[in-house]
Amino acid sequence: MENTDTIAALATPSGESAIALIRVTGALCEKIAMEAFTLAKSPAPRHASYGSYRDLSGEILDDVVYILFRGPKSYTGEDVLEVSCHGNPLIATRLLEDLLARGCRQSDPGEFTRRAFLNGRMDLTQAEAVMELIQARSDRAIRVANKQLRGNFGRQLDELKMRLLATVATIEAYIDFPDEDLPPEQKKAEIEAIRSVLAFCGRIIDSGKYAAFLRDGVKTLILGEPNAGKSSLLNCLLGFERAIVSDEPGTTRDFIRERIMLDGYCIQVMDTAGLREAANGIEQQGIRKTVELTEEADLFLLVIDGTLPAPTLPEEVSRQITADNCILVQNKADLGALQPLPSPLDGLRRVTMSALSGTGLESLKSAAVEMIDAHLAQDQDDLILVNARHSAALKELSECLESAIRNFEAGEPAEFVASELRGAVEAIGRVLGRIDNEDMLDVLFSSFCIGK
Amino acid sequence: MENTDTIAALATPSGESAIALIRVTGALCEKIAMEAFTLAKSPAPRHASYGSYRDLSGEILDDVVYILFRGPKSYTGEDVLEVSCHGNPLIATRLLEDLLARGCRQSDPGEFTRRAFLNGRMDLTQAEAVMELIQARSDRAIRVANKQLRGNFGRQLDELKMRLLATVATIEAYIDFPDEDLPPEQKKAEIEAIRSVLAFCGRIIDSGKYAAFLRDGVKTLILGEPNAGKSSLLNCLLGFERAIVSDEPGTTRDFIRERIMLDGYCIQVMDTAGLREAANGIEQQGIRKTVELTEEADLFLLVIDGTLPAPTLPEEVSRQITADNCILVQNKADLGALQPLPSPLDGLRRVTMSALSGTGLESLKSAAVEMIDAHLAQDQDDLILVNARHSAALKELSECLESAIRNFEAGEPAEFVASELRGAVEAIGRVLGRIDNEDMLDVLFSSFCIGK
Repeated sequence: MENTDTIAALATPSGESAIALIRVTGALCEKIAMEAFTLAKSPAPRHASYGSYRDLSGEILDDVVYILFRGPKSYTGEDVLEVSCHGNPLIATRLLEDLLARGCRQSDPGEFTRRAFLNGRMDLTQAEAVMELIQARSDRAIRVANKQLRGNFGRQLDELKMRLLATVATIEAYIDFPDEDLPPEQKKAEIEAIRSVLAFCGRIIDSGKYAAFLRDGVKTLILGEPNAGKSSLLNCLLGFERAIVSDEPGTTRDFIRERIMLDGYCIQVMDTAGLREAANGIEQQGIRKTVELTEEADLFLLVIDGTLPAPTLPEEVSRQITADNCILVQNKADLGALQPLPSPLDGLRRVTMSALSGTGLESLKSAAVEMIDAHLAQDQDDLILVNARHSAALKELSECLESAIRNFEAGEPAEFVASELRGAVEAIGRVLGRIDNEDMLDVLFSSFCIGK
Repeated sequence: MENTDTIAALATPSGESAIALIRVTGALCEKIAMEAFTLAKSPAPRHASYGSYRDLSGEILDDVVYILFRGPKSYTGEDVLEVSCHGNPLIATRLLEDLLARGCRQSDPGEFTRRAFLNGRMDLTQAEAVMELIQARSDRAIRVANKQLRGNFGRQLDELKMRLLATVATIEAYIDFPDEDLPPEQKKAEIEAIRSVLAFCGRIIDSGKYAAFLRDGVKTLILGEPNAGKSSLLNCLLGFERAIVSDEPGTTRDFIRERIMLDGYCIQVMDTAGLREAANGIEQQGIRKTVELTEEADLFLLVIDGTLPAPTLPEEVSRQITADNCILVQNKADLGALQPLPSPLDGLRRVTMSALSGTGLESLKSAAVEMIDAHLAQDQDDLILVNARHSAALKELSECLESAIRNFEAGEPAEFVASELRGAVEAIGRVLGRIDNEDMLDVLFSSFCIGK
């Protein structure tokens, strides 16, 4: 075990506030509590006590509330000492300095959660969920991270593993009897079992797109010709004057990015430079950037001036747009009769609105939410916050399973198939963190907050 | 009592972190804890429990640690519920929203401490010490605020009050016997007692200067002719390149302000535009600002190029400088023989150094600390963080006492003297907050952090 030293960190953001919380974990916690608070006996576990924290020189640093959590029933699985001091960054610094002088080490980012993982308090997908939860920017992301923190993903993977191990056991039972073969109907059933694991894997990998929605927000591009009202639409969505709006076509040059919440989704709205042929140098750069952005967008709001003939979009842009990812916003509905639409735009879902007055905004919002919901064909209750690490392990897992099925069907030796399935079981173990890999842990936990 | 509703607030700074702490105080705490954590019975007081916080709709918002403190043995004197959630501002917001939906009100700044005061958990000088402690920017300020938080100032004032009340009692004992007079020796003793209270008052008022030192830092002005090395000295004191240094005289225009810590003092160092006659418009503005700054400075570091003849300072500047508040820094000691000093500068404490190489820096620092220490002639252990409110009440108190002594000595009626002394006792009560004044409380607590 690496976790023999005692570590300490400020667990709350630095800044003037009512309270700052310092966390300590490791073998020294009890000793430090008894000495710093001059106690005759160990504090009762989990009891919040009020006391004067004295530094090594005996001087009172602050009056605080402290709690000793006894391992293994603590966050890290080791003893944990929590000290809530007055929310003055200087006091927190002095307390931390004194803790270091008493033998603690300043913790690395994520080191508390790393210890929780190493001490078996959570699997790796749960440890990741802790960070997902802290970084979640929408209610849906919080909900999914919460489920993952509770071990949903881990349990699903455990189930997959058990299923595969059962198949492995069945296959291996015949290895010792080279003259006997798996009965055909049983072989068929085992292949079915492997296929169902494979299908489940595929569903999880596919949900990676949704995880990105939850993590980074749905990338939504406001597109259209100059002066169609794109910046007005952005301001209307945000509810405040973020973008400069003027009658002069080509007012927006740099694209503008803001986040809004729509029905629990985090939406990253980008207002872009209007698309047109004739433009000066700066504006052309803006247009080039708009075209680039279309390639990574999840959702398009194509704004047209409803009173003018519909525009022709550049080929690079129009090929990104489909009925599933684009809403046609017929703006300036307040300014007179709307023009008919040509056939390529005709198939798009259409919302009529006035970005200036806000009429039609609610229809636009619900159209957007419906489109995002439809993107996520799968059952949302089963969602996993798939990250790059999971994807890689799950793809490896899928490959092992596919190869195992191929070889099994081709009548390859049972040893061979069993070994591939054991490779698949290992890949699952890697997702859960059951197979130790120091480098991977270093990378994973270094993205955490200090003190977590 | 105004504190019948339940209030809630985020007690830690907003931001991504390991933990965020939400505090609730008031009658609803127990009910909310039982409902949000779906408990069958009230949680054990002061016990840190782990649980899933469910919002009113029954959805889990986060897994948290919660503690119920039972009034009156709590910070506010009422029930207090503390919820430590994951350090995600969105989660904290959702938790707060749910608490409001459950009948809490978002707390005003300082409202927790206000309740502590109103419920007799601390006097007003202690409540003020809470904020002083949170805002303290030096170790000395923390030390003094800590003593005040522990009630030192309040106890001293209580002692004064008891002394005055004893005198009042003695005097009033003779009021009912118009024919009898206070024996001369007793009258003399009572006047002595009043004088000693008056003297103590004066000492506290005088220490206001020190309180400002602690609160805002010692305002230290780096002064001198262009190119004497003022910006180099600032950089040398800070330990990093803050100010642009060049051979061209007049490089610094806007003054630069930075804080450093010297032996527990917070020092506000200001680098200023060099003082000289001939200068262009922008530089002249800088020089005018320098002259203005001299009026509010506590300490001067007058930098001269030791290899050149000593400069003549503008009259407005030189009249601010004394042997008690100015250190003469003979810079460029590495560049050759130092020039003799003319008589006005001759009397100043002198440090020879090279701001470029750092030679002599330690001597300068200790000279500065000695000068600040000397400023504070009084016993530093008795210090009070005197604020404007204290000063006003203590000045009123002093006036009452002076008038009482005058009238007592002039043989005015005992009723009259006793009434003036009662006025003095009231002034003490006002400092402690024993005399209620809603407006004063509003102003005082509104400068606090939310959640404190």
